[in-house]
Amino acid sequence: MTVYVGVEDLCRLVASVGVEPFIAGIADRIESDFRRWREFDKAPRYASHSPDGVIELMPAADRRRFSFKYVNGHPKNTRLGLQTVAAFGVLADVDTGYPVLLSEMTVLTALRTAATSALAARYLARPDSRTMALIGLGAQSEFQALGFRALLGIERLQVWDIDPAAIAKFRANMAGLGFHVTAARSAPDAVLGADVITTVTADKAQATILSDNMVGAGIHINAVGGDCPGKTELAPAILSRGTVFVEYPEQTRIEGEIQQMPADFPVTELWRVFAGEAPGRSSADEITIFDSVGFGIEDFSALSYVHALIEGRDDLPRLDLIVAPGDPRNLFGLVREPQPEQRAA
Amino acid sequence: MTVYVGVEDLCRLVASVGVEPFIAGIADRIESDFRRWREFDKAPRYASHSPDGVIELMPAADRRRFSFKYVNGHPKNTRLGLQTVAAFGVLADVDTGYPVLLSEMTVLTALRTAATSALAARYLARPDSRTMALIGLGAQSEFQALGFRALLGIERLQVWDIDPAAIAKFRANMAGLGFHVTAARSAPDAVLGADVITTVTADKAQATILSDNMVGAGIHINAVGGDCPGKTELAPAILSRGTVFVEYPEQTRIEGEIQQMPADFPVTELWRVFAGEAPGRSSADEITIFDSVGFGIEDFSALSYVHALIEGRDDLPRLDLIVAPGDPRNLFGLVREPQPEQRAA
Repeated sequence: MTVYVGVEDLCRLVASVGVEPFIAGIADRIESDFRRWREFDKAPRYASHSPDGVIELMPAADRRRFSFKYVNGHPKNTRLGLQTVAAFGVLADVDTGYPVLLSEMTVLTALRTAATSALAARYLARPDSRTMALIGLGAQSEFQALGFRALLGIERLQVWDIDPAAIAKFRANMAGLGFHVTAARSAPDAVLGADVITTVTADKAQATILSDNMVGAGIHINAVGGDCPGKTELAPAILSRGTVFVEYPEQTRIEGEIQQMPADFPVTELWRVFAGEAPGRSSADEITIFDSVGFGIEDFSALSYVHALIEGRDDLPRLDLIVAPGDPRNLFGLVREPQPEQRAA
Repeated sequence: MTVYVGVEDLCRLVASVGVEPFIAGIADRIESDFRRWREFDKAPRYASHSPDGVIELMPAADRRRFSFKYVNGHPKNTRLGLQTVAAFGVLADVDTGYPVLLSEMTVLTALRTAATSALAARYLARPDSRTMALIGLGAQSEFQALGFRALLGIERLQVWDIDPAAIAKFRANMAGLGFHVTAARSAPDAVLGADVITTVTADKAQATILSDNMVGAGIHINAVGGDCPGKTELAPAILSRGTVFVEYPEQTRIEGEIQQMPADFPVTELWRVFAGEAPGRSSADEITIFDSVGFGIEDFSALSYVHALIEGRDDLPRLDLIVAPGDPRNLFGLVREPQPEQRAA
């Protein structure tokens, strides 16, 4: 039987662990999984584009576990009161092919994206970074803030969104959490004096959230929002001035900020930095850029973390996704004469 | 909320409709979906191979719906009392990216495979076909038999399996269903006088279930078991003598019987036959071969059929796979202070 973790149970699990420790726990998994990068089956995600959005399948596997995430991206959904990004995922046993966990991943994706961002920044941002500009105050913004405090000690946030309601929502959510939050009057205002800039806007369009003159020496940019063809946030000149780090070049060249650059534009794979095979930040003046698009191994890590957390719990629902007949070759017996004891328990 | 159809509910649904009408219902969907082939987003399935098996993701989409199936193939599983092939699938709304149905597909795959086989045979077998040789009496065999009766009027079965227990299981399952079943003493014995030969064996190996001298003029071969790299059932000479029909050449050349043939070996796409763009059988003497591997659109059709059947029913379980917060941008509100009324209903 497959354990089911729906939205309600996942939120309860996160609340019981605490958001920051939960993000840190996923980050630990991502770090150790990325360090054994060569052991994974990897592929660019499968994307089915439609006029209003995209639906994607993101697989990853090592020798023990296979995972995939189903995720959509529909910027117009918010107008209908629906999530821009909704997701669920499965962890399965490679030896038998049987799914062991089906989990919601809308909340979990926000947590794992924050974990990846903060983990990358621990290798790429200046160690004395304390102030982050946060541009785009949608569904993922608070998770990014907490991830950066958990892993980097970021406590000062200079935030900006074109929608005042998003700023108000962010302020209300962060109240009492111990951050020093300043609402900026514009994106250029938000980045003034920041050590780290996180862009996490949602428009499915080529946008220039950051122009070249907004980015000073020594900055680390965590570019999260540009994650599908035709959707970018940074001026190309910034990419040329900085050092660009990516998850999986085959995918990022199609979906990331570097879709604006030539096919041979130099990038460093993040896993090589985590594994000590490539340098992260090399000087205090360097501009480092994490061109984040999200990769299947991060979902693998997040699902593995959840699976480990719930191990041994018998209070979570089980799904009869897989037939359990007495004789596995007797599938027909199930539909010919359905008998409760022959069916999945 | 996503409707959930587990094994128990799917079996109940099949039993209430009847196995043969259910297969015929899926076949109608497959026929009409294949006829509008050009409207679909198509891709070879994603396959992750391991020493003992394979895990696959099979997507398909038209302008309204996206579907995918998760399916494994682990021949050794039967030794552990597990299914060789286990599967589940999702139907989602293209406009919003939200999943509307999550269904078991182990049983449903057997039904849709039988539907595809029988539908292909209606175009490819001689119309006066009454006798089918059925080689390989595993989990899918009874479904094939019922599919061929529902769509073709096949009533006489000459069956064979290397395992006597599988023959006994098949006979017991088919008792009282009105078929004339003869247990053969060998594969060559089974095919004697048959109009249609169905091979549906499970070994993940290059096997010769049918050798050239076993196949006479006018036969239709429904080759179901050869469906992944290194797994075939037919002697190459049979393929050269016959006319080969396939679902999606890009996938079948990797996975089907024709993996044994040169890359330019001529094949006819089944959808073109259904759409009247290519001939099916052209003479009573022709050997026709359906090199079946299974394709995502067939799962799309099967899920669509189930979704239509359960429309309006409120007695099936719902899964809180997707967050439903008051404000879609306020995902964080769910984990910060979980309040029942803010969560998925």
